[in-house]
Amino acid sequence: MHVMIIGAAGMIGRKLVERLAVAPAALGHEITHLTLVDVVEPETPATLSAISATLAIDLSSEGGAERLVAARPDVIFHLAAIVSGEAEADFDKGYRVNLDGTRALFEAIRQEGRRERYAPRVIFASSIAVFGQPFPERIGDEFFTTPLTSYGTQKAICELLLADYTRRGFFDGIGIRLPTICIRPGAPNKAASGFFSNILREPLAGNEAVLPVDENVRHWFASPRSAVGFFVHATRLDTSRIGPRRNLTMPGLSALVGEEIEALGRIAGAKAVRLIRHEPDPVIRAIVAGWPTNFDARRARELGFTAEASFDEIIRIHIEDELGGKI
Amino acid sequence: MHVMIIGAAGMIGRKLVERLAVAPAALGHEITHLTLVDVVEPETPATLSAISATLAIDLSSEGGAERLVAARPDVIFHLAAIVSGEAEADFDKGYRVNLDGTRALFEAIRQEGRRERYAPRVIFASSIAVFGQPFPERIGDEFFTTPLTSYGTQKAICELLLADYTRRGFFDGIGIRLPTICIRPGAPNKAASGFFSNILREPLAGNEAVLPVDENVRHWFASPRSAVGFFVHATRLDTSRIGPRRNLTMPGLSALVGEEIEALGRIAGAKAVRLIRHEPDPVIRAIVAGWPTNFDARRARELGFTAEASFDEIIRIHIEDELGGKI
Repeated sequence: MHVMIIGAAGMIGRKLVERLAVAPAALGHEITHLTLVDVVEPETPATLSAISATLAIDLSSEGGAERLVAARPDVIFHLAAIVSGEAEADFDKGYRVNLDGTRALFEAIRQEGRRERYAPRVIFASSIAVFGQPFPERIGDEFFTTPLTSYGTQKAICELLLADYTRRGFFDGIGIRLPTICIRPGAPNKAASGFFSNILREPLAGNEAVLPVDENVRHWFASPRSAVGFFVHATRLDTSRIGPRRNLTMPGLSALVGEEIEALGRIAGAKAVRLIRHEPDPVIRAIVAGWPTNFDARRARELGFTAEASFDEIIRIHIEDELGGKI
Repeated sequence: MHVMIIGAAGMIGRKLVERLAVAPAALGHEITHLTLVDVVEPETPATLSAISATLAIDLSSEGGAERLVAARPDVIFHLAAIVSGEAEADFDKGYRVNLDGTRALFEAIRQEGRRERYAPRVIFASSIAVFGQPFPERIGDEFFTTPLTSYGTQKAICELLLADYTRRGFFDGIGIRLPTICIRPGAPNKAASGFFSNILREPLAGNEAVLPVDENVRHWFASPRSAVGFFVHATRLDTSRIGPRRNLTMPGLSALVGEEIEALGRIAGAKAVRLIRHEPDPVIRAIVAGWPTNFDARRARELGFTAEASFDEIIRIHIEDELGGKI
């Protein structure tokens, strides 16, 4: 099986590659070729180097998508995107990369299939940003997508395209609406959502972190390990069970910031909690107030997708996967 | 005020022009220029000829949208589309006209606004085809759009673009999700939905009509007069009342085919009813089974959009508007 990961240099892309390196049978078939694609050349783990190729290609560049699809991969993970803040700041770039790039990929697959029968599994990273307030207390699987960012609009449009291209038989698509991934590894980032991870990751490493919102802010989370699990599960899934509604809100954990902090205290002690500095930021508070807080992700759960049930679990996963099991 | 109607040669476009001819103040401002656009040159009523210009332009052609927007109309009605059946039969043409053509229009408006401040009212004809089964008994205003046709997909994508371009301030958009328009004037047409009109229009004119489905089929209707009313009302509406959710399911009448026929009997007698020939067609029956049957169009009603409450009313409107008041 030829597997292609577009966006392989991003956080989830790298973690997906790492998973395939330690569990090469995770996708249910032997991987004979692995193509790693990003706008910068992605890294390849040593254990996969014999079957891997890397490509630095921008999907939205002329002929980029055709070049990727010419090798006729059996499974394509499409994780590449301009993030929310940048898509809002640069309207043209956001639409070019997030919409036109994705459409170019879908269209290249269709054209390849007109040449010779071809209908790969396409697994697309979408986002809960397809939803816009006001929300019900729990957002159900049939709630409408009225995004309040250009990023969310682009993702919602690609979801519609994915469903239509799948319905027409051009490929076998699944859209994965990711929760906010927590704890993001790496340095604190400036995304408005960064603090959800910062206030755990930094104290666990003995560093200070800033909390710009109240402890009673509620949000929707899954670990990086769960995110990789969603994509792996989507590869193995019997898509005849899904029907034409191909975009799925992934399960997650609805939790208060205060519950994050309590879990940190249980696992790393009061000293870690004291490293969180409360510095209310009205701008971040206003942005966060527009975000979804809770979902009833029944369809995805019934299809076998799983996520964490507590922040203790999310923190333990971070300690195992990022800190070598020790704090 | 400069008003532009794109798709002015279509059924609703022509009726909208007729309305403006008899009620030039209908939009709330004096119309100083009226530009009528279609892929074929639209007709102009004599009473409007002094202020009208006609253009034969395909929105999706190179530079077409820019040419239209260069005149900076204050209100743009975008009614042009490839219909459902053709968009399903010709994938490329459907996406080119219904998606790329609309996006070209929106983008031309944005670019014109970058040159010099400009944010016209844009009123877009969408469709209940943005919804796909299975449905709840009544589809509410927050139900998701999971279209089962490429046409419905294209309309749902344009709705998302309209909302985002509006949110960003590039124009002031409203999406009007039309019910099935009944009674369509003119010759019987081959659309799968044609029989809903045929079984009334033809007997009213003394001709036979074929009914290919059971009388207990339920569907969602509004008259051509109501459709024009939706667009007129959308022009006058205070959009600050709408918020960012710019696409509105229009009110309509949920009725059984049997109720259509009963109304025909009340108005035109048993002789008219006997002109309906029952010829079950399993293909049409299957298509119709996937269509929405009933909506709770609360938001649009609260915003002042209105439609008929009975088929008697729908038939009387046809007699007044198309048959000179007599049968």
